[in-house]
Amino acid sequence: MGFMIAQRAFIKLYMITLVEKHRGYGYQMLEELKQDFKALGYEPPQSEIYRSLHDLVEDGILYRTRHRKLDVDYQEVIMYHFTDDGMEKARLYKKLVKEDLDRCQALLHKAVKDNF
Amino acid sequence: MGFMIAQRAFIKLYMITLVEKHRGYGYQMLEELKQDFKALGYEPPQSEIYRSLHDLVEDGILYRTRHRKLDVDYQEVIMYHFTDDGMEKARLYKKLVKEDLDRCQALLHKAVKDNF
Repeated sequence: MGFMIAQRAFIKLYMITLVEKHRGYGYQMLEELKQDFKALGYEPPQSEIYRSLHDLVEDGILYRTRHRKLDVDYQEVIMYHFTDDGMEKARLYKKLVKEDLDRCQALLHKAVKDNF
Repeated sequence: MGFMIAQRAFIKLYMITLVEKHRGYGYQMLEELKQDFKALGYEPPQSEIYRSLHDLVEDGILYRTRHRKLDVDYQEVIMYHFTDDGMEKARLYKKLVKEDLDRCQALLHKAVKDNF
């Protein structure tokens, strides 16, 4: 158990939720997440987003498909989907991440209470 | 700006507060912090605590004194105190850490809201 939640777990959680919402387009996921956190002064690194998607494929939760855009020659779109048991695996993973988020919130809350 | 608050900043904050409370005994600070977080499943690493104290001395916020324990031969106690402008520097440092804690709380809160 580390100090704070790992950035990778935090981003994997968002990737799973985007696929749940049928918004699993590789490039758009990246842009959506970046935009989403702008107001909070955090920019999820592109490399971490790609590694998170890679992890989720390795974990057997997601698989990717490649599609050719009709209007633009040679441009491919990568889409992510749940594998057959991916939704169940994702549910268990999200449960673990939720516990870690709760633990981190308790740590931060305690630090504010103890020091301010 | 990183993802989550750095463990070093988190521990420096606690070290400053312990010195404010006149509990700046090197070894006891370590034990107090470890005990304090047991319930939350986090154990501040000893090396990080010593590096935090080292940083605070380097920053000109704290200075150390060495005392010989009267009842035990050859055993030294190290105590930490604020330098002349250490309290003011510590106040500014704590203000920055508070901003970072608030930012992290907002990130975690958003993650729970967005994904659960």
